[in-house]
Amino acid sequence: MKQKVVLAFSGGLDTSYCVKYLSEEKGLEVHSVLVDTGGFSPEELQQIENKAKSLGVTSHVTVSQVDTYYQQCIKYLVFGNILKNNTYPLSVSAERAFQAMAVAEYAKKIQAKYVAHGSTGAGNDQVRFDIIFRILIPDVQIITPIRDNKLSREQEIEYLKSKGVVQEWHKAAYSINKGLWGTSVGGKETLTSHGYLPESAFPTQLTKEEPQTVDLHFEQGELKGINEQKFENPADAIKKLTEIATPFAVGRDIHVGDTIIGIKGRVGFEAAAPLIIIKAHHTLEKHVLTKWQLYWKEQLANWYGNLLHEGQFLEPVMRNIETFLTDTQKHVTGTVHVQLAPYRFYVLGIESKFDLMSAKFGSYGEMNNAWSGEDVRGFSKILSNQTMIYGKISQDNE
Amino acid sequence: MKQKVVLAFSGGLDTSYCVKYLSEEKGLEVHSVLVDTGGFSPEELQQIENKAKSLGVTSHVTVSQVDTYYQQCIKYLVFGNILKNNTYPLSVSAERAFQAMAVAEYAKKIQAKYVAHGSTGAGNDQVRFDIIFRILIPDVQIITPIRDNKLSREQEIEYLKSKGVVQEWHKAAYSINKGLWGTSVGGKETLTSHGYLPESAFPTQLTKEEPQTVDLHFEQGELKGINEQKFENPADAIKKLTEIATPFAVGRDIHVGDTIIGIKGRVGFEAAAPLIIIKAHHTLEKHVLTKWQLYWKEQLANWYGNLLHEGQFLEPVMRNIETFLTDTQKHVTGTVHVQLAPYRFYVLGIESKFDLMSAKFGSYGEMNNAWSGEDVRGFSKILSNQTMIYGKISQDNE
Amino acid sequence: MKQKVVLAFSGGLDTSYCVKYLSEEKGLEVHSVLVDTGGFSPEELQQIENKAKSLGVTSHVTVSQVDTYYQQCIKYLVFGNILKNNTYPLSVSAERAFQAMAVAEYAKKIQAKYVAHGSTGAGNDQVRFDIIFRILIPDVQIITPIRDNKLSREQEIEYLKSKGVVQEWHKAAYSINKGLWGTSVGGKETLTSHGYLPESAFPTQLTKEEPQTVDLHFEQGELKGINEQKFENPADAIKKLTEIATPFAVGRDIHVGDTIIGIKGRVGFEAAAPLIIIKAHHTLEKHVLTKWQLYWKEQLANWYGNLLHEGQFLEPVMRNIETFLTDTQKHVTGTVHVQLAPYRFYVLGIESKFDLMSAKFGSYGEMNNAWSGEDVRGFSKILSNQTMIYGKISQDNE
Amino acid sequence: MKQKVVLAFSGGLDTSYCVKYLSEEKGLEVHSVLVDTGGFSPEELQQIENKAKSLGVTSHVTVSQVDTYYQQCIKYLVFGNILKNNTYPLSVSAERAFQAMAVAEYAKKIQAKYVAHGSTGAGNDQVRFDIIFRILIPDVQIITPIRDNKLSREQEIEYLKSKGVVQEWHKAAYSINKGLWGTSVGGKETLTSHGYLPESAFPTQLTKEEPQTVDLHFEQGELKGINEQKFENPADAIKKLTEIATPFAVGRDIHVGDTIIGIKGRVGFEAAAPLIIIKAHHTLEKHVLTKWQLYWKEQLANWYGNLLHEGQFLEPVMRNIETFLTDTQKHVTGTVHVQLAPYRFYVLGIESKFDLMSAKFGSYGEMNNAWSGEDVRGFSKILSNQTMIYGKISQDNE
Repeated sequence: MKQKVVLAFSGGLDTSYCVKYLSEEKGLEVHSVLVDTGGFSPEELQQIENKAKSLGVTSHVTVSQVDTYYQQCIKYLVFGNILKNNTYPLSVSAERAFQAMAVAEYAKKIQAKYVAHGSTGAGNDQVRFDIIFRILIPDVQIITPIRDNKLSREQEIEYLKSKGVVQEWHKAAYSINKGLWGTSVGGKETLTSHGYLPESAFPTQLTKEEPQTVDLHFEQGELKGINEQKFENPADAIKKLTEIATPFAVGRDIHVGDTIIGIKGRVGFEAAAPLIIIKAHHTLEKHVLTKWQLYWKEQLANWYGNLLHEGQFLEPVMRNIETFLTDTQKHVTGTVHVQLAPYRFYVLGIESKFDLMSAKFGSYGEMNNAWSGEDVRGFSKILSNQTMIYGKISQDNE
Repeated sequence: MKQKVVLAFSGGLDTSYCVKYLSEEKGLEVHSVLVDTGGFSPEELQQIENKAKSLGVTSHVTVSQVDTYYQQCIKYLVFGNILKNNTYPLSVSAERAFQAMAVAEYAKKIQAKYVAHGSTGAGNDQVRFDIIFRILIPDVQIITPIRDNKLSREQEIEYLKSKGVVQEWHKAAYSINKGLWGTSVGGKETLTSHGYLPESAFPTQLTKEEPQTVDLHFEQGELKGINEQKFENPADAIKKLTEIATPFAVGRDIHVGDTIIGIKGRVGFEAAAPLIIIKAHHTLEKHVLTKWQLYWKEQLANWYGNLLHEGQFLEPVMRNIETFLTDTQKHVTGTVHVQLAPYRFYVLGIESKFDLMSAKFGSYGEMNNAWSGEDVRGFSKILSNQTMIYGKISQDNE
Repeated sequence: MKQKVVLAFSGGLDTSYCVKYLSEEKGLEVHSVLVDTGGFSPEELQQIENKAKSLGVTSHVTVSQVDTYYQQCIKYLVFGNILKNNTYPLSVSAERAFQAMAVAEYAKKIQAKYVAHGSTGAGNDQVRFDIIFRILIPDVQIITPIRDNKLSREQEIEYLKSKGVVQEWHKAAYSINKGLWGTSVGGKETLTSHGYLPESAFPTQLTKEEPQTVDLHFEQGELKGINEQKFENPADAIKKLTEIATPFAVGRDIHVGDTIIGIKGRVGFEAAAPLIIIKAHHTLEKHVLTKWQLYWKEQLANWYGNLLHEGQFLEPVMRNIETFLTDTQKHVTGTVHVQLAPYRFYVLGIESKFDLMSAKFGSYGEMNNAWSGEDVRGFSKILSNQTMIYGKISQDNE
Repeated sequence: MKQKVVLAFSGGLDTSYCVKYLSEEKGLEVHSVLVDTGGFSPEELQQIENKAKSLGVTSHVTVSQVDTYYQQCIKYLVFGNILKNNTYPLSVSAERAFQAMAVAEYAKKIQAKYVAHGSTGAGNDQVRFDIIFRILIPDVQIITPIRDNKLSREQEIEYLKSKGVVQEWHKAAYSINKGLWGTSVGGKETLTSHGYLPESAFPTQLTKEEPQTVDLHFEQGELKGINEQKFENPADAIKKLTEIATPFAVGRDIHVGDTIIGIKGRVGFEAAAPLIIIKAHHTLEKHVLTKWQLYWKEQLANWYGNLLHEGQFLEPVMRNIETFLTDTQKHVTGTVHVQLAPYRFYVLGIESKFDLMSAKFGSYGEMNNAWSGEDVRGFSKILSNQTMIYGKISQDNE
């Protein structure tokens, strides 16, 4: 009887090769899985399924993880205003974790002895898949045909052709990864340190010229409304905001970062909704949280982003950080007004009943009467004590 | 014989009031000081001097601190990519420190018994002046007439009129503070949480439509050249970049922050050169520094910004942090290509002989041969060990 | 009708003075409150009450806060292994917060217009009381007779005598502050930088010579058992351990720290149970938590200690940190064996079903088979990538 | 012609095996190196050399790295008061780095094509050697016979016997690693979570009962004198203090930590001088540094310890941290009085001209006059502002 292998399948050349290789060379029963983290239309999902079947998989399943992905990860990326290196919303890193977890879950369910992914040996994704498989299904063996055999595109195409899979394997100028939390764009210019992506490389182009205001309604840190529309599920709000903002060609940049394997990497991205939501959410927080809440949120969120990037989503400290972040969001409720314009957006202002700057409470009108000049003079005096003493001691020892 | 008071003088209503009040009510000999941190033209400096004299000061001096300000502070704000709350280049905070230090120095030099500043009791500046005076000249008494007497504009004007100072005290719609490291704009909308500054409130307006590329040359973290032009003194390069970039109306935003006295504050700003330099410098660093250098630079720089904001420029740890930051800049040499366009700018890419992403060295072409898929597999396996064990232990105890 | 003042009363000279001063000079109705944070016997509490009444207070109440103090603070000091400057269990800082909060609560309840404390102007306690009163009862005015009038002991005694309070005001050689979480000892030697407290200054002396082992049972981070005895309430376990360990004269040291007002301070302490519990708890954590959990716990706990020390127990971030710390304790269950000996104690070892070092699970026996030498070789190779590249780049630019 | 291999040789069974294996099975010319980091007597060094030669190495060198080790590492461990997990002075981690660097240097010098170490696949050392070799001599191939062949002691002995090496391979009950910065002791009890090392397992036993005071003189953070004796070289002072303190059986504990490969490990140690020096140095710092200097030193030093532990001594950020730490030591000059007693030591106090607590300067006598009760009242008021406002806002929204 054949052993089962669960393959993370995307429909591209690499994973198509894997289907054939695993079944024909390894003699395994291939069960392909496509995990949807918000980047596919129903038509695309169907096409991928058809493809898998035409390649001869024993079974193919599509696992939608969009809600799980929002609830277990994106939510915290918003709570933490997480932009890797102050730039990148970490979309790919996050998606890989949820794809790997769903694949592992499925492998467990069908009691597969093997699990396979199509990663090459050059990037982050291989590590993300490997780590999560090792943790969740340590007894299942990992097969990575492309990495192990160091195959080139040509070799893969040749092999597939030899197996009767004749198809136009279109080599896209740019490698695109699309999901709920943004789209990454890599290739050509991003392989160098100095080139910038041409306008046409970005998935969407500027189609709106007229500036427009959009109101984002947050409830305890989550996006629950846009303009007049309410959303039960923030994932839907993200999709809606993507629709509204993308025509302004905003949320683009190039991220330069450290790969998990120690080399530097560069990738372009388009992430209109994530960047707007994070800037809006962060501005709201600046109004409703205290100085030290803001400080410590930043520290922990930064680390959360680092571990997520490095495939360590399952590290127990991640759960502790999520608990912390959630606890800080109790007052993060209010509306943020955002201005959209071609190629840029900015936050106009916020309204919140928890606004620490608000003057709506009686005692606030007289805030200036809550302390005197003398009080501040005393404050400054005491605050300077230590450095003042330090200065005297230094002088006396010169 | 009259006692001397050194007054930090700006030529505005508050400090004009102070001149009269200190001399006539307090019977002091007023020595006014204007400290230039890059925000005044020679004509403006002359006008302020004339004003001081016409108000009857015993002496007036203009102290240019532009170079000192760059060398002792802005340099480190660049090294640290410091933007308060990820937004604001901390221009006012930094200027106040250097103004206070120069005033204190002058008070020491002329052996003044008093020092005065025109701050009110509502903001950050009072604390910044107080703290630095307390540390550098603890035996000199601080007088703050506006704060102490809780005076209104009208009262001040009335008093000056009574002393024969008849002048049109123009109440500007916005309070502007200009210096080498940016211009802040406060008033009306920024006093609320939701209003945005009108276009006209910003010191400069969009006058250039045609996108333009500018090359910034950094040497060990300092901006030493722009396009074809070299600058011995980075302060001059900052001025030059301000000229080039300001017509694009870039570098504007509204900063929401915690004042030193615990209330929230909001202020607009226009800081084209600072924002461009920081983004460019940071991008260069992402290419030449290691992951942990970037991480720890960010931690220390963030704190440096906090203490600077809170008037603690003289805290000894600031010197230690400066030493650290300087030490990290040895490889931060290279050119950053920046694209300027109306209302926005972005970094196109960088070139540096220290680029860790560079492929120009022999061994780099074969970087992919420096490790195998097996190596990464081992790496991932070991890296997942602890969480894998944690998972097993958890399962066994469910 | 007389206005009410609530006075934090300890029965000492300072607060005795306050009773008379507030009633006779200020014409207030004095309501004294003694907040018990674990440092008083029933007899002592009764004596203090008698004293208050004999001084003529309108009412006196004893508020026991021992459980609240444990539940809302000590628990987190244990979860966080918090020792200020790696030395001091922060007993006084923590007690003051709970005393101030209980006093504020009482002032609110009886609708007092004033609240008073007997702090001098030289230490931390004044700030702790002030801050908590300002936050919880901002409309209640704070009176601090000793601080305001800069009174000496002699002046206070003289004044009391003049009011008919004739008593032997014994000036203790050392100022002692006792509570559930330890006893501080200040005076003479601790007022200098070089003197050490004599043996007799410590509240208890060595009375046990024979080494003894004690087993501490933790459940989710809380001490719930000692040897064979179970404790529903960890506060009782702390008292029991204090009984067991104090005869060994352990848990003593001198803490040197920064006061809130910027000067350095030194204080001795005896805190057998706190030091033993923290060391034991920390050792248990080293076995059951991951590297990054330990790291971030330490960061947040350190800050928690800082804010607590500085009177900022009510800062909202403290609640967020408590949530984080609690979340990390799920696996901190097990037994720690501690050796007690004259003047020292040490942890012998731990036992826990969550021990990540445990070999009791099947797969653990073959842990060495979970990876190969090749895996570690790959791990090391990948881990050294960035510094290796950095080294090459550096060499090429020498 | 035979290729050269440089072998890190210790004289033990594993590296003896390596000599034979490398020469006979691999056909290499073996050049053995013993790097002395302070743990060997001249006699021991001679014995190891004899052994190497009797095993047939082509050459053997002893490289003394004691001074380098102090100057490039221990110095910073003192500046940073570094105790891993608040317990362990990181002696082994630090030594391995210097051993690996010296071996790599030698391999470069003699242009060896191979380098070998005798590490097994279970611990930290293999990673430390691998990483440093990869960084310093990336083109030299690493051979690890014990790890690669998963050999047992018996197999090694058998093999050696077959090659004519007949010797009593004494299996020590505990594995001991001795160096300038302490001695580690592993085996039996430390392989479990609950056992404690017996008295006899520690390298030295209690031989002094009479308590004794020792004065440590620090200059800019370095130990430059003990009692009446001055030391040009702090490494000599460390040796001297070891002599003085070890007879008191102090500085012992068991460290529980995370190995680089993700499992937990436990190891006993005896490090009298390191623990005393760190506690003394830290106490001195608490007197002469400011609050924020202490805070940031701790953060950076903690990380320095982590990276050192994990074999990352060559990470560029380590140099940046060293620069920071050195910069903080300018005032860390003074004498620390330490009390030694059986099984324990404690700091009695310090004397320093930079003591911020010192009252020797004129103005200090009146420090209490440097501020008033009113000043502190104002200070507390302003300091509580934000939380007070937060409290009001919260109440209004309940």
